[in-house]
Amino acid sequence: MTTDELKALIRTVPDFPSPGIQFRDITTLLGHGAGLAATMKHLAKAAELAGAEVIAGMEARGFIFGTGVAVELGIGFIPIRKPGKLPIKTIGVDYDLEYGTDRLEIDPAAIAPGQRVVMVDDLIATGGTALAAADLLRQAGGIVEQALFVIDLPELGGAEKLRSAGVTVDALMAFDGH
Amino acid sequence: MTTDELKALIRTVPDFPSPGIQFRDITTLLGHGAGLAATMKHLAKAAELAGAEVIAGMEARGFIFGTGVAVELGIGFIPIRKPGKLPIKTIGVDYDLEYGTDRLEIDPAAIAPGQRVVMVDDLIATGGTALAAADLLRQAGGIVEQALFVIDLPELGGAEKLRSAGVTVDALMAFDGH
Repeated sequence: MTTDELKALIRTVPDFPSPGIQFRDITTLLGHGAGLAATMKHLAKAAELAGAEVIAGMEARGFIFGTGVAVELGIGFIPIRKPGKLPIKTIGVDYDLEYGTDRLEIDPAAIAPGQRVVMVDDLIATGGTALAAADLLRQAGGIVEQALFVIDLPELGGAEKLRSAGVTVDALMAFDGH
Repeated sequence: MTTDELKALIRTVPDFPSPGIQFRDITTLLGHGAGLAATMKHLAKAAELAGAEVIAGMEARGFIFGTGVAVELGIGFIPIRKPGKLPIKTIGVDYDLEYGTDRLEIDPAAIAPGQRVVMVDDLIATGGTALAAADLLRQAGGIVEQALFVIDLPELGGAEKLRSAGVTVDALMAFDGH
């Protein structure tokens, strides 16, 4: 399936989570067997071209696409988790949200020094979480030069923000507006 | 890789999250490319034998294994989410935890009536979440007769509880104790 066909499988929900926001919902893509498999193939091809040695994905929707890519390439997957979920001594990074802050954690042993990590997530919007994740993976010794998304919302500037931090961004599709 | 070899990739962390609990940590399995791929192949084979038409997985670690199985079989994936995450009118189920209650939600349109759903998660312990998920998927019209786990902790009785509810349980490996 082409990425245009995959884009047609995304459901747009108006006014969620707040008025004026058009929520791009991947649930309908996940429920489409051929669409889901094709999404993984497209992402995996891009990750392979970027020389991925390990894939990292953010809790929770990044687990969906990140794992699929890792399995497709036969390489490992690093779950980037919310605080307190990992049972070992983690390294973490705090980052700002619109209201308040949040934190991401990983197992520092998950990355070998100099290992090439490709980040995978469902959607890039303002890029705050992705940027924090890139910082964290670099702190752990990873080389982070590529991030892959199913959906980009370019008007929100996240992809641009990641590029400024030295991370190439590719997405299978883009939507106008928020 | 055999399931015994996969078992050797699980890290046991003593006294997490509380004294006396041995936490079985899948992070180390995820980080092992060949191990991760083999885990998906074992689970997918079992799901195929059970006649899976769609896979369901619980947020967040169920997303990891559930998606991998769905992609392997070329069928759809239903994310069973925590409250408020899905942008559409959901159906949900409340269930008891040791302290307090929790809730699971799905998109009711994700399941066709009479569709055969196989549940996938990383670990079955007391089975409370898995049982609630099975109820929810059945409410949505799904036939739920098989649940697959990477790890079973048989002493905690979850697998037995699911079997009493008409759900066959298979796990790639079991660990004694809590």
